Amino acid sequence: MSLGVIGYSQRMARWEPDALGRLAVAALELFSERGYDETTVAEIAERAGLTKRTFFRYFADKREVLFMDGGGEFQRVIIEAVGAAPASASPLEAVAAGLEATGAFFEGRREFAIKRHNVIAANPELQERERMKLASLAEGIAEALRARGVTEPAATLAGEAGTSVFHVAFARWVSPDGGGDLVALIRESLGELRNVAA
Amino acid sequence: MSLGVIGYSQRMARWEPDALGRLAVAALELFSERGYDETTVAEIAERAGLTKRTFFRYFADKREVLFMDGGGEFQRVIIEAVGAAPASASPLEAVAAGLEATGAFFEGRREFAIKRHNVIAANPELQERERMKLASLAEGIAEALRARGVTEPAATLAGEAGTSVFHVAFARWVSPDGGGDLVALIRESLGELRNVAA
Repeated sequence: MSLGVIGYSQRMARWEPDALGRLAVAALELFSERGYDETTVAEIAERAGLTKRTFFRYFADKREVLFMDGGGEFQRVIIEAVGAAPASASPLEAVAAGLEATGAFFEGRREFAIKRHNVIAANPELQERERMKLASLAEGIAEALRARGVTEPAATLAGEAGTSVFHVAFARWVSPDGGGDLVALIRESLGELRNVAA
Repeated sequence: MSLGVIGYSQRMARWEPDALGRLAVAALELFSERGYDETTVAEIAERAGLTKRTFFRYFADKREVLFMDGGGEFQRVIIEAVGAAPASASPLEAVAAGLEATGAFFEGRREFAIKRHNVIAANPELQERERMKLASLAEGIAEALRARGVTEPAATLAGEAGTSVFHVAFARWVSPDGGGDLVALIRESLGELRNVAA
């Protein structure tokens, strides 16, 4: 018990203001400059003016910098908004409400998102991890729809279609001639899906 | 040159009738009985009445037994049928033609498909490989649609939606109360997608 308390105060003493943010920015800069595989944790810590030990207090490894929320916060934002959609909303309308909630989540984060997108696009192993995250999002949305009483296979199809819509809109948002309003791009993609399926 | 010829005739001498099929059936049996991780290549070869060397003539490793065509033949069947759809077909109609072409491909293979499905469902690493295969299928369909003059993001959305439709239909086909006509299930799923997006 007392050992635990000592451990805690030691951790507090080494706490650095916004160490997480500084490490994330330093990592993205280095991944962009030299490539993901060529960057070490020691280099990330050095660029951030912190130690490797501090790095490992926040991240299990350098990959975790790119998948920080581990599908956590981002996915939760979407799924809560799906659940909070009016009872009268159709499955796809509820999914749309979920996807549009990401607008606030990504507010002010486009530059970071572009760097992250480009690092992932250059690395098959990271693409695989990103695909898994999207598959988990599709399943999470389907689960939220089933909780709203949507039956199968509609729930799975709407979850996967919604994830595709988000994926397409996000890729346009981070593209060189993209930007602007992510929510507007999501609505456009959703309209395209409706056209395709009509 | 002459060495090549000797190598060739040696391979011919060791050729076994339907060794590939026997190895695949033996592997699926063992994966189902003891689990994928618990099965060795030596055991698969023994069950098939063949040698480990023969196994490695056909497969790089035991995982390749489950992903034999490596997205090759299966994906080619779909993509060729997308390309061969009438010029008047909408993007989703062309995708539907592609998916329906899998009916002939899976003819007589349901028992194998069920075993394969269950082995993959029990193993996260294999699920990841399967997801990558589906992502590659979605991209292949989108490419075939772009070759038909379909623009973005419609091509990507139709490729991903078509892959979801296939995934859902296939899961129903291999489920315990499934079976019957895979093509009919694909058409039903496609109808569900249309309903969801309407």
